[in-house]
Amino acid sequence: MTDSTTPDNNTHNQFDNKAKAWSARFSEPVSELVKRYTASVDFDKRLAPFDIQGSLAHAEMLAHVGVISKDDLAQIEQGMATILQEIEAGDFDWSLDLEDVHLNIEKRLVELIGDAGKRLHTGRSRNDQVATDMRLWLRAEIDRLLELLKQLRQALARVALAQHATIMPGFTHLQVAQPVTFGHHLLAYAEMFQRDAERLADCRRRVNRSPLGAAALAGTSYPIDRERSAERLGFEAVCRNSLDAVSDRDFAIEFCAAASLVMTHISRFSEELILWMSPRFGFIRLADRFCTGSSIMPQKKNPDVPELARGKTGRVNGHLIALLTLMKSQPLAYNKDNQEDKEGLFDTADTLRDTLTIFVDMVDGITVNADNMRDAALQGFSTATDLADYLVKKGLPFRDAHEAVALAVRKCEELSCDLAELDLAQLKAFDNRIEEDVFEVLTLEGSVAARNHLGGTAPERVKAEAERILAEK
Amino acid sequence: MTDSTTPDNNTHNQFDNKAKAWSARFSEPVSELVKRYTASVDFDKRLAPFDIQGSLAHAEMLAHVGVISKDDLAQIEQGMATILQEIEAGDFDWSLDLEDVHLNIEKRLVELIGDAGKRLHTGRSRNDQVATDMRLWLRAEIDRLLELLKQLRQALARVALAQHATIMPGFTHLQVAQPVTFGHHLLAYAEMFQRDAERLADCRRRVNRSPLGAAALAGTSYPIDRERSAERLGFEAVCRNSLDAVSDRDFAIEFCAAASLVMTHISRFSEELILWMSPRFGFIRLADRFCTGSSIMPQKKNPDVPELARGKTGRVNGHLIALLTLMKSQPLAYNKDNQEDKEGLFDTADTLRDTLTIFVDMVDGITVNADNMRDAALQGFSTATDLADYLVKKGLPFRDAHEAVALAVRKCEELSCDLAELDLAQLKAFDNRIEEDVFEVLTLEGSVAARNHLGGTAPERVKAEAERILAEK
Amino acid sequence: MTDSTTPDNNTHNQFDNKAKAWSARFSEPVSELVKRYTASVDFDKRLAPFDIQGSLAHAEMLAHVGVISKDDLAQIEQGMATILQEIEAGDFDWSLDLEDVHLNIEKRLVELIGDAGKRLHTGRSRNDQVATDMRLWLRAEIDRLLELLKQLRQALARVALAQHATIMPGFTHLQVAQPVTFGHHLLAYAEMFQRDAERLADCRRRVNRSPLGAAALAGTSYPIDRERSAERLGFEAVCRNSLDAVSDRDFAIEFCAAASLVMTHISRFSEELILWMSPRFGFIRLADRFCTGSSIMPQKKNPDVPELARGKTGRVNGHLIALLTLMKSQPLAYNKDNQEDKEGLFDTADTLRDTLTIFVDMVDGITVNADNMRDAALQGFSTATDLADYLVKKGLPFRDAHEAVALAVRKCEELSCDLAELDLAQLKAFDNRIEEDVFEVLTLEGSVAARNHLGGTAPERVKAEAERILAEK
Amino acid sequence: MTDSTTPDNNTHNQFDNKAKAWSARFSEPVSELVKRYTASVDFDKRLAPFDIQGSLAHAEMLAHVGVISKDDLAQIEQGMATILQEIEAGDFDWSLDLEDVHLNIEKRLVELIGDAGKRLHTGRSRNDQVATDMRLWLRAEIDRLLELLKQLRQALARVALAQHATIMPGFTHLQVAQPVTFGHHLLAYAEMFQRDAERLADCRRRVNRSPLGAAALAGTSYPIDRERSAERLGFEAVCRNSLDAVSDRDFAIEFCAAASLVMTHISRFSEELILWMSPRFGFIRLADRFCTGSSIMPQKKNPDVPELARGKTGRVNGHLIALLTLMKSQPLAYNKDNQEDKEGLFDTADTLRDTLTIFVDMVDGITVNADNMRDAALQGFSTATDLADYLVKKGLPFRDAHEAVALAVRKCEELSCDLAELDLAQLKAFDNRIEEDVFEVLTLEGSVAARNHLGGTAPERVKAEAERILAEK
Repeated sequence: MTDSTTPDNNTHNQFDNKAKAWSARFSEPVSELVKRYTASVDFDKRLAPFDIQGSLAHAEMLAHVGVISKDDLAQIEQGMATILQEIEAGDFDWSLDLEDVHLNIEKRLVELIGDAGKRLHTGRSRNDQVATDMRLWLRAEIDRLLELLKQLRQALARVALAQHATIMPGFTHLQVAQPVTFGHHLLAYAEMFQRDAERLADCRRRVNRSPLGAAALAGTSYPIDRERSAERLGFEAVCRNSLDAVSDRDFAIEFCAAASLVMTHISRFSEELILWMSPRFGFIRLADRFCTGSSIMPQKKNPDVPELARGKTGRVNGHLIALLTLMKSQPLAYNKDNQEDKEGLFDTADTLRDTLTIFVDMVDGITVNADNMRDAALQGFSTATDLADYLVKKGLPFRDAHEAVALAVRKCEELSCDLAELDLAQLKAFDNRIEEDVFEVLTLEGSVAARNHLGGTAPERVKAEAERILAEK
Repeated sequence: MTDSTTPDNNTHNQFDNKAKAWSARFSEPVSELVKRYTASVDFDKRLAPFDIQGSLAHAEMLAHVGVISKDDLAQIEQGMATILQEIEAGDFDWSLDLEDVHLNIEKRLVELIGDAGKRLHTGRSRNDQVATDMRLWLRAEIDRLLELLKQLRQALARVALAQHATIMPGFTHLQVAQPVTFGHHLLAYAEMFQRDAERLADCRRRVNRSPLGAAALAGTSYPIDRERSAERLGFEAVCRNSLDAVSDRDFAIEFCAAASLVMTHISRFSEELILWMSPRFGFIRLADRFCTGSSIMPQKKNPDVPELARGKTGRVNGHLIALLTLMKSQPLAYNKDNQEDKEGLFDTADTLRDTLTIFVDMVDGITVNADNMRDAALQGFSTATDLADYLVKKGLPFRDAHEAVALAVRKCEELSCDLAELDLAQLKAFDNRIEEDVFEVLTLEGSVAARNHLGGTAPERVKAEAERILAEK
Repeated sequence: MTDSTTPDNNTHNQFDNKAKAWSARFSEPVSELVKRYTASVDFDKRLAPFDIQGSLAHAEMLAHVGVISKDDLAQIEQGMATILQEIEAGDFDWSLDLEDVHLNIEKRLVELIGDAGKRLHTGRSRNDQVATDMRLWLRAEIDRLLELLKQLRQALARVALAQHATIMPGFTHLQVAQPVTFGHHLLAYAEMFQRDAERLADCRRRVNRSPLGAAALAGTSYPIDRERSAERLGFEAVCRNSLDAVSDRDFAIEFCAAASLVMTHISRFSEELILWMSPRFGFIRLADRFCTGSSIMPQKKNPDVPELARGKTGRVNGHLIALLTLMKSQPLAYNKDNQEDKEGLFDTADTLRDTLTIFVDMVDGITVNADNMRDAALQGFSTATDLADYLVKKGLPFRDAHEAVALAVRKCEELSCDLAELDLAQLKAFDNRIEEDVFEVLTLEGSVAARNHLGGTAPERVKAEAERILAEK
Repeated sequence: MTDSTTPDNNTHNQFDNKAKAWSARFSEPVSELVKRYTASVDFDKRLAPFDIQGSLAHAEMLAHVGVISKDDLAQIEQGMATILQEIEAGDFDWSLDLEDVHLNIEKRLVELIGDAGKRLHTGRSRNDQVATDMRLWLRAEIDRLLELLKQLRQALARVALAQHATIMPGFTHLQVAQPVTFGHHLLAYAEMFQRDAERLADCRRRVNRSPLGAAALAGTSYPIDRERSAERLGFEAVCRNSLDAVSDRDFAIEFCAAASLVMTHISRFSEELILWMSPRFGFIRLADRFCTGSSIMPQKKNPDVPELARGKTGRVNGHLIALLTLMKSQPLAYNKDNQEDKEGLFDTADTLRDTLTIFVDMVDGITVNADNMRDAALQGFSTATDLADYLVKKGLPFRDAHEAVALAVRKCEELSCDLAELDLAQLKAFDNRIEEDVFEVLTLEGSVAARNHLGGTAPERVKAEAERILAEK
């Protein structure tokens, strides 16, 4: 169908004049500020390897169905290899006049291989091209994040295993509630990051669909084979509607929403690390390499990393809102608004990757002050629920037991003592079913050991759970 | 282990004095404003059927493991049946003093059945109870939404099937791009709602896990069987860490994020319905039952429903941000902040349900003005790409063909005519490969028919795609 | 110009048939669900007093310029008085068929006074009417909030005055930084709430402009006097462009943004109250009336109010995003989307009002544990900066002094002692300029007293600042 | 008090070893990734001129009160002049090891001038320093934006003046409502940008306060004069509480909220420009320099600039949410989270500046197609309200007139004609008060001219309003 040796009787090359006019249809160039405002090459050049990957799959498909010749394909492959090398070597000359990564690469290709290069864009548009690039890039990012989430869970499990029996106060409302083990507490975060991994994996399935071949918005008049290019690119499926394919940014939004949850978990964990590092708690220390000092106060050692990570939650939530706002009310099909999908998405992936990488290392660098944890668990009547449960086991309905213990706690507060410091006579005043065996249930060790069911804080449960996570491949 | 006939030697009932003090541990009641500020019963009473369902599963499990007697269980079941009846009949007396749906129901149960009622709360806390209720409620809501999304896709497919060959201008940048069929355009939305359904189904798996038995935060000292209560409640899995189980609101946030995407799609569709109803487009009419008039302008017929739906996107995005903000930096485990998870989540589900229900009906009530659509497609050189493709098929590299056609369009603009109105001689001036057969590719019908591949706008493809959707069970 | 005695030769009354069709122009009624979806009367009826106030000013202006008769005006005034009474008594029959507060009231007016009632809507539209109502309502809300912010600042100043010399650790990064007084700390919040008041006052100026007379979007053909109705309603200015006047919701968004900052400050204060109430800090107690207990743990006393207030930050941020999303990309002039401006705005004002009201009372109910504060300030080398400053005053450049003290702190950590516990010889090892007088600057009292400049933490400064605030009228 | 000639007996310079350890207090350096994660110099170096300006004012004050010598001051001034030159020439060597703009500059200063440089940081901290820098920078940005907003209003007024009598359909709900003039429509945006300017000016007052002297959080023990440094820096006031001064980011959030409204207005205007450029409207053309083409469709000319600007609304809303999320629940005083305040704020200011600059030029480049506007106004019964008003002036109550005209419109729709095309007999059928003079009020010119009151669309009003804006200095 094509003949790459046919002499070209048309001497207008769109790329040559881009600095003067967008195409033959335009009467003036964009101004310098407009050029800078509308160009994306400064940030979308990071898509270059994926852009080339997509172009190669598209060219191979075009050759397969006979839209371009095998020779064209060979030239395109050769040209792209050169371009990739130039980019990797930092020798590629990115031009703002050429707007974006796509035109920059295509223009260079035409420079290198002539007419075969001009045939590459047959049967596609930048609209499906950029959607393809973004999906390929995001799929790779998700795979890196899944690996990091797994590493973080395993780091948490390692510390949890070491601390499976270290008792600390469990808080609700930041008031002492019941004793838990530090290992159990850390594994709560392993659960959160596990859900994050599930969500990213679900998101990946929707990322991993091919828009290639949707062309501008309606498909193309060439006999293309979309499944073929999709398969070469490792896509699981093909987007089934061309108008949707070029304008869909759901995958970016879904990723950002999943990322906001990752950062929400990071923010909660950071909050606790900061609290635990505060001298008021004194539960842990972070390695010095995650802290910095003060320009004025010589004694300071500040948990900079968790604080900054906590702050970065805002950034990621902001990008999510940016994308949702971007897509609100956009009519079909592609609109230039969509160019705004990139910077926030890139920054979201970068933020997650850096944050998770650092946290893996930081978790492994936690030093525990078990004495401070234990001392704190001894304050605040943390075994009051155990006393109520004791009464229930002696036959008192729970609701009444709760009230009896509330009175006992009030008494202790008046006497400035703990429940375990009351003597048997004093305790019997609240319920005469109380016997000598009550003092066992009032210990911290008794309390945690008793919670020995799936999800409970009993040390043996925590150990088993940490081992289960560490055993995951 | 328990003996429901044991005489109760404790006369303090926590519920009886709640208006005076929270429990025996408190020295003053909350003020009226504080009570109203902190109580949730006004909005969480909608959880009542799920609260009862959860309590019954919990009680059955307690009886099974011997923590309460069979007789207690029977009494609890009887009492709950009465309460459910009272609520459904509108006879239940909701009290602000009792804070929330849980205490209101528990107090009534104690009134009805005495000590057995006081035993219900054994081995659980409101922290795991409310998480259970929310998950059961949300699971039911998701199931309703999945059904509505399917109905909406089928409504779209019905209209698409009827209009599979109706030609309209496809727009990018709201400029005429290429002709598409109206059926094809509608099916783009069917794709979006399909992804929404996938996302909700994925979310449902994470909703459908049982926190019951996590108790306050650490699990409980009773020999509970969490898998048993989970199974009775239809949960697919059990939350594996008690601290996480009571403080996790990921499921609510993930649902809200999925809901924001549903509303984003609704906003895009609404934007187009509004444009198409505008006299400047005149492409469709909506049935009168979705429109209202003006208090001052007698001629007005306004597309109120799509406009309001478009506006409601903001509300749902807002709820998403509210929940993300809520959870940011919250230390473990439960904090009272979490009570704020409900109103926004309820409103999100209500908004989606109402909006989707109306849209199913509204789509079926769309009347098409095919003449206006066709006239609009004839403007704006919508077959210019077909001319470029024609030249490519004659051997011109695409990038050169693009430039040749740009010059032809410029010429047409000067002459105020369409490409198809140039004669052959005029066309040959742009490229001498152009022959008489060019006029076929310049027709709207030729253009759409040529895009005959998966996802393309060719009428036969659209028909097949609509039929595929309608065939889904 | 009008003659209220003219017999009416038109028997169609738009209101009578609203359940059947929107107006004579419509062929079917809206469905029940659409009616519920599009009607706003359930929530906008709270605007009724402002709607009536606006209508009376409009009618007075119409009569003044001769568009309606004095007699019409008298009847309208009488009718509106009746309606206001009915509403206040709860006897008004709100109908969903009549959509909103405006039509409900207008219909009732026509029932009560006939043709004069039908003349009220001359020269206006619901578009300018609802904008007027919203602005009047919001102005009143702002005035209430300004009063509450002042009360809160004074409550803070009262406690600050009492605690102007109570020393606590000042934290940065939740690490002990330098000693401050508790009074000084509280006054930081007084500053924040002062800025909030300034912002609301600025916002009020933009709220307080009259859209009345913009009619549907273009103004009206009657000889209206917009300044007259504006003045009667207490507006400071008149909106100068009718298209803008009916579609402008900036005032609502600006209010919500100011509200988000109020809640941000509340969230920060709440965070600290929760920390200070935690047994790990033990700095303060809140009165029991702001706390609740646990359904399972008898010993708990939870700071519910600050936690819930912290959570409500999310709700208010969400409403801000909802409104910004709502207005994004809306073409002029009025669109039905705008009906969505109300619920979020109402809830924002309600949330602020309740929260501030409770906080005024709660601040006054703070009990301070000065011993715990002081003990905490003695940990963490809080006077290290004072030592560096001491060295500077002896001639060492600050940057070198900082390093010398860092070494001293490191030494103390090795010895597990405080700086003040080193003896003179040990201190001189770090810099031989250190003399006996160093021990004065290492005391907490010395440290705070030395910061005696505008904005510094010296007790006499704090006292003066608190007195200044309390002296504000 | 200081003696810059005193030999320094301490050889540890904090800056020299930063790559090895943060200070003498630290045992290991931060890792490369942590360094990159926590350093801000890559983006905060743009604050350099303001950082130097702040340092010079601080040094001058220190010399004035005698904390440093006049000679120290002279050296600092000389050193800073050199540094500023180096930065402007691009010769300054920014180091990641030195974290931020402050330490980079201070270290260079010490290199250049020795001990005098080490004295600069006396009596201040990076906490008050960075807050000062940010406020100085933002104040300058606001001043630039105020100028741009004024230019944009004047550009709008210029076009409005030229088009003060050009009639177009005014839309509500994108349905034809009433005729307006194009000039009137543009002036609606001039009103919006006027409010934006007011808001930014209000915000500027709160930006323009001096935190300098708050030091780390508590003030300083040196006898500083905060009013003096504030005055030299052009601040209007001094922050009155040191804890608040270092942790307050209200000014950044308030700016972002004001920016979100600017972009909301830009998004609304952009939406209309895009609609008006669409061939379905054909109301205007934008100059080619604001448009680009398609890589596949040769005929395309897309309104890229307004589309991209519309999209950038999301980015700015996102930054607002990022900052609100950042500050939520942060305890006093400074936390590292706050470093995250910068990038979003910088990007917000940049986005506004670029967008407004381009829009000023773009508005001036609007070409109007008055014929298309007029044709569109003739459709859709845009003078129906005028007919109702006509009937009112003949004595019919408005509510009845509305219904009569609704019937007339319905008749016209059946006859496919306009109201003005009915003959007198046909019109009298709806109300026999209609006379020959009705045809005047049914013209477009009659309709717009009649709306001749403040804010109305009458051409003479529009002209006056445009002239008023152009006359502003």
